[in-house]
Amino acid sequence: MKLKVKFLKWEAGLPVAMLHFKTAEKLGVRIQGNISIKTLSKYSKEMVTIIDTIDEPYVRENEILVSNEIKEEMRLKKGQKVDVNLAPIPESLNFIKKKLNSGVLTRNEIFIITRDIARNALSEAEIALLVAAMYKQGMRMSETIAMIEAMIKFGNKFSVKGKYIVDKHSIGGVAGNRTTPIVVSICSADGLIFPKTSSRAITSAAGTADVLETIMEVEFTPDELKKILKKTNAFMVWGGSLDMVPVDSKIIKVEKELNIDPKSQLVASIMSKKFAVGSKYILIDIPYGKSVKVDRKKAESLKNEFLSLGKHFHKKIRVVLTDGSEPIGNGVGPALELKDIVKVLDPKQKGPKDLEKKSLFLAGELFELTGMAKKGYGLKMAEKILYSGDAFKKFKEIVEAQKGNLNRLKRVARFKKEIHSAKKARITGIDNKKINSLARITGCPVDKFSGVYLYHHVGDEIKKGEKIISLYSETQSRLRQAIKFYRVENPIKFK
Amino acid sequence: MKLKVKFLKWEAGLPVAMLHFKTAEKLGVRIQGNISIKTLSKYSKEMVTIIDTIDEPYVRENEILVSNEIKEEMRLKKGQKVDVNLAPIPESLNFIKKKLNSGVLTRNEIFIITRDIARNALSEAEIALLVAAMYKQGMRMSETIAMIEAMIKFGNKFSVKGKYIVDKHSIGGVAGNRTTPIVVSICSADGLIFPKTSSRAITSAAGTADVLETIMEVEFTPDELKKILKKTNAFMVWGGSLDMVPVDSKIIKVEKELNIDPKSQLVASIMSKKFAVGSKYILIDIPYGKSVKVDRKKAESLKNEFLSLGKHFHKKIRVVLTDGSEPIGNGVGPALELKDIVKVLDPKQKGPKDLEKKSLFLAGELFELTGMAKKGYGLKMAEKILYSGDAFKKFKEIVEAQKGNLNRLKRVARFKKEIHSAKKARITGIDNKKINSLARITGCPVDKFSGVYLYHHVGDEIKKGEKIISLYSETQSRLRQAIKFYRVENPIKFK
Repeated sequence: MKLKVKFLKWEAGLPVAMLHFKTAEKLGVRIQGNISIKTLSKYSKEMVTIIDTIDEPYVRENEILVSNEIKEEMRLKKGQKVDVNLAPIPESLNFIKKKLNSGVLTRNEIFIITRDIARNALSEAEIALLVAAMYKQGMRMSETIAMIEAMIKFGNKFSVKGKYIVDKHSIGGVAGNRTTPIVVSICSADGLIFPKTSSRAITSAAGTADVLETIMEVEFTPDELKKILKKTNAFMVWGGSLDMVPVDSKIIKVEKELNIDPKSQLVASIMSKKFAVGSKYILIDIPYGKSVKVDRKKAESLKNEFLSLGKHFHKKIRVVLTDGSEPIGNGVGPALELKDIVKVLDPKQKGPKDLEKKSLFLAGELFELTGMAKKGYGLKMAEKILYSGDAFKKFKEIVEAQKGNLNRLKRVARFKKEIHSAKKARITGIDNKKINSLARITGCPVDKFSGVYLYHHVGDEIKKGEKIISLYSETQSRLRQAIKFYRVENPIKFK
Repeated sequence: MKLKVKFLKWEAGLPVAMLHFKTAEKLGVRIQGNISIKTLSKYSKEMVTIIDTIDEPYVRENEILVSNEIKEEMRLKKGQKVDVNLAPIPESLNFIKKKLNSGVLTRNEIFIITRDIARNALSEAEIALLVAAMYKQGMRMSETIAMIEAMIKFGNKFSVKGKYIVDKHSIGGVAGNRTTPIVVSICSADGLIFPKTSSRAITSAAGTADVLETIMEVEFTPDELKKILKKTNAFMVWGGSLDMVPVDSKIIKVEKELNIDPKSQLVASIMSKKFAVGSKYILIDIPYGKSVKVDRKKAESLKNEFLSLGKHFHKKIRVVLTDGSEPIGNGVGPALELKDIVKVLDPKQKGPKDLEKKSLFLAGELFELTGMAKKGYGLKMAEKILYSGDAFKKFKEIVEAQKGNLNRLKRVARFKKEIHSAKKARITGIDNKKINSLARITGCPVDKFSGVYLYHHVGDEIKKGEKIISLYSETQSRLRQAIKFYRVENPIKFK
């Protein structure tokens, strides 16, 4: 059935269309049923979506009202005619059930599931079943490999040319662990090509994209990114804007809703995104510890999985297990973390030593992985670039290319509360999860300048009356809530 | 935040609201995020829903546009003010994950999950996770009991008074197995009170509600139903219109989407609906066989589960395992099945013997279960009522009370194709699933008069050229498709 496209600046968070109820009846589709929308051009695009019905004058019988998500994905124009039909039941649902029933999926079955997610033929409930199946059954190496290949196939490539295209990824969970901007600046200052895409915070206080956004733009078109990369050897942007692996994005959306993070999908998700930008050398940082995502044992098993995948895909992968027992750096929150970063980068300032040390270590590993430095000399090379100010210079170049301005970092949040120690004591533990929650309560990641500042690390001896932590917030009420949370939850343990 | 309610005759198939993007920002809710809507009256109603955003003039900053599903469930009026707030993350998600991880849920945890589904705080993806968990892990008796109690608590009771309130339920899968109208007519003709709610077809050719709807109404208000019951001792309506167990309806909606039917939920679903209408004597018919839902072993285990629940809830429950190896009756499809039923009920006509026999057996069991007949005399009692015409009289009473008219059954579908045997043969099997699919292809359950008519049963000897099956459809194209399906799939096997 040919219908005319209509928009209403309707953001539904997922592709959905509205039909006049008579049109729905004619098509034989029920509410929440699936239709396929096809453009009429020679190389027609097709997409499957669920429908609602609505009355005139919002939609006429010969019209289809689509949400912005469809408009953008199909690049539709107002009034354009599209072919709308009843969509068949996706066969991938049977494969998902096979997986849930402990079966092993073939390459072909995984490709069909992935294709159906890509064309939007699976509902969120159906994707949730897939997530549950992966969570309960895990995935064999053959399945993970097929998943990576399928996600790349049904995605968009961003092809970067060059010999030394590198990437890094940290499994999350450590508060303040914002090494990326430092590592990218050091490595690209020495000629490595670093097309870095990062995520925004979901449950944490800040993602790298949130942090950078405090002073620069993090969303660009592919053409703009190519220009930036040519100019500076690197970019640091939000991965969602490029959306190179839309299937992964759709699965992650459901995982977030369910707050479930199947290990097998985690690996496929990371690898597909790295491969989609053409990275050849990939460093994976897996912090382990009590209050982060994985313990030592799980970290080891993840490491092996990454290494096997590297072998299969002929990529140079190095995996480092790092200490995730406490936060890194002093600031937790977008602007506070970025202030730490600038202090580490700027030779004239003194930044948090632990953040500096970890960043140098990671950059050094990448120099060795690419062969730019001989084994054992990567760290020295990284130190030289950092201490000379070359890394800071590169950072400022990238900030400028991404339309940023370091001066934006000068302000502080409107309200602040310093908490002092009531007695002489020793810090015995700092809980990553609780520090994250605390920072979120102050307003992170939305309020860029809110967050917490930690004055100490585990093992430090504190005098009576000494500052332990400062809380920053844009509103009094959030600050009060944060103080209360701090008192009740004790994110910092003393003895 | 106080907002004014607005409608647009918007049918979304699930509760969803639209806010102006600035309002969403103020609330701090993202697209697809949860808000709670609360009425301002003393006994305020509350509901949780996801949101979309849209631009003026469709929604202004001080307005909230709600889908019909919210309007109806909360009984909102245009322009009414409601209190809208950010909804917290439901804690039941943790319990669902516990179940997925092989845990056993406490009574309290099940009540919280059920409450969250009732107030719409769980998304379809989250309910899908629950379905996956129940499917993978099964449920202990203690969990099923808690689930039944919780679903009734968060539902609507339809209280029927009387000593002999009976009910029956057949686990589906047998094509043409439409005993309900006959059993209800026989039993209520002898004074049993039979408030029967039935379902519509989902994957089958017809549900009892679809069948009855051919000639009478099946949706009434509770008040209307009470009047009908008082007048005739019985009613036969679509369960969905009463919606006594809305939590069950929401779970079933997702199960249908996923085409998954966890056994434990099946039992809780059936029992909660029977208990909600106050049934004291319940007969469960479990047909078993190769081409229906359960085999003999699974039927036995289901039987035990029903009996244990009966004991726990102090209800008289009888479970019969019946032969589900082939279709019952001749017609498959709403009108064709009802024609069979009328022939069985009307003493002046000759109906399908197998349908008559099974209906009499079930009615006899109910007479014995209630003590209306002594052990061994139930069948005789049922036969007497059927053969005397009393059951048919009662059936016509119910038809009239439900605003029906038997004359509506007189027409036939526009197109018909008789298929004859090419040779002398013996029928060795009739596949329920394939016969169902065949009937659906002809147009069931939407086209009431479409469907298939079977002239024989398994074991019959067929002469060359003898009629085997007739296909009925309202369009030539559907009929052609059905003929093709019959030729390719061979739903009837010969030797």
